[in-house]
Amino acid sequence: MNTAARTSTTRARVWTLEGAERHTHRDALVAEEPLEIRLTSGAARHTVAVTMRTPGADFELAAGFLHNEGIIAEREAIMQMTYCVDGEAPQQYNIVNVALRSPVLPDLAPLDRHFLTTSACGVCGKASLESIRRRAHPPLVSGPEIAPETLYALPDRLRAAQNLFTATGGLHAAGLFDAAGNLLALREDIGRHNALDKLIGWALLEDRLPLAAHVVLMSGRVSFEIVQKCLAAGVPVVAAVSAPSSLAVALAAEHGMTLIGFLRAARCNVYTGIERIAATG
Amino acid sequence: MNTAARTSTTRARVWTLEGAERHTHRDALVAEEPLEIRLTSGAARHTVAVTMRTPGADFELAAGFLHNEGIIAEREAIMQMTYCVDGEAPQQYNIVNVALRSPVLPDLAPLDRHFLTTSACGVCGKASLESIRRRAHPPLVSGPEIAPETLYALPDRLRAAQNLFTATGGLHAAGLFDAAGNLLALREDIGRHNALDKLIGWALLEDRLPLAAHVVLMSGRVSFEIVQKCLAAGVPVVAAVSAPSSLAVALAAEHGMTLIGFLRAARCNVYTGIERIAATG
Repeated sequence: MNTAARTSTTRARVWTLEGAERHTHRDALVAEEPLEIRLTSGAARHTVAVTMRTPGADFELAAGFLHNEGIIAEREAIMQMTYCVDGEAPQQYNIVNVALRSPVLPDLAPLDRHFLTTSACGVCGKASLESIRRRAHPPLVSGPEIAPETLYALPDRLRAAQNLFTATGGLHAAGLFDAAGNLLALREDIGRHNALDKLIGWALLEDRLPLAAHVVLMSGRVSFEIVQKCLAAGVPVVAAVSAPSSLAVALAAEHGMTLIGFLRAARCNVYTGIERIAATG
Repeated sequence: MNTAARTSTTRARVWTLEGAERHTHRDALVAEEPLEIRLTSGAARHTVAVTMRTPGADFELAAGFLHNEGIIAEREAIMQMTYCVDGEAPQQYNIVNVALRSPVLPDLAPLDRHFLTTSACGVCGKASLESIRRRAHPPLVSGPEIAPETLYALPDRLRAAQNLFTATGGLHAAGLFDAAGNLLALREDIGRHNALDKLIGWALLEDRLPLAAHVVLMSGRVSFEIVQKCLAAGVPVVAAVSAPSSLAVALAAEHGMTLIGFLRAARCNVYTGIERIAATG
């Protein structure tokens, strides 16, 4: 099986059943491929993640992932990014080498969180929570004040832009807006975290971080990790078309982020940071 | 911040904006908490995963995760499962200890896939793919033949059962059906992988594996990992309300699984394994 692709969709033969009828045709599938992200510093080399992603914006994904995990702080930390072309296998665009300017690899301990090995249980109930929360985030600025009408318009703008890129029905989107509601960038992926990593990676590579006057809109739900990534990028207002989780709300509240859910035409829920929403009428 | 909870929903104060109006009320949030899964064998102990999950069915989640990752094959491998209560911190129900009967810890190398460290690049484009695909799966049985009408009825049954459990709008569901379309079990979680791990963990603890005459229905999309977990449980027919990914289709085709997407009333797409769908009319 070799399905490596640089395109974000592939085509496959599909049977469509409608009632008792069936017919076969070719249809678009959202592409899913593993991406291995490798850090290099001089002769040192370390694989930091393998993520299942939709091909496209891979360098942005790598940069955003590394920023959001606290490994790099700014574009200048990256000397170059390349697809791995060593070895005998044909280039498959599934490994990105990120060459750092630093002569030594940074502390990668934060990445061990998923597989931390603990030999004692003296911090029962804290070890896991603390290990995923130990990163300090820069304080959020007070940020923009947003009019409700501006918020209400965002989902349609995200969907309109998203429709340009996909007909697969299988992609998450993360959109970056200014405080007036203008769409600045949109990234899509089969994984919502990847879509956000790509978006923030784009901002990092464009030297736009922190995103202190911006709104991020997610096409789906907002989990703890989405809030954490937005905090790392300094985003003061995070909105979603669907629901936030309890821990997403708690983390947003702790850091003074405005968190909005169930954003639809003329309606939304504001879970934290109501002070950034303009009172109208 | 201490939001640890044993319940699958929490309540929070929310502002709802409707047009230019706003009011505040209390609303339900889907709970999200980290769960650390620890293996113990005699005196040996190893954390194998920290996953963000919705509390509830934690032992099923742990058992299903370990089965789906190839760490345990059957219920008998587990001596007991307990919430970690060592140490001084209050019990927070966020660590599950899985005590194995085996006197030594099993090979945990498969779990290193996310953070494998490679010092050479001689398998460029293969290392990551192979590392995530190296598990052998038991062959699927020919499995049941399903009538289209039976398939069409499944999403409504899943949603009807799901509505009993949640009003948060934020949960994925995985449902297990027999070939006649009867719902046998349903599990929910903020993460689709967790919902499926819980479902398969339930089946493992009930000694029902492999699920060779069954249909699994996912409320959302089907990724590579969803297919991989269903293969590990021997599920011959996997259906989803939304889209499958390219790699999900490729893996299902390789193993002769029937994979169905966009399952709605009186309509679906069959991507692989059309031979298990009864021809009607």
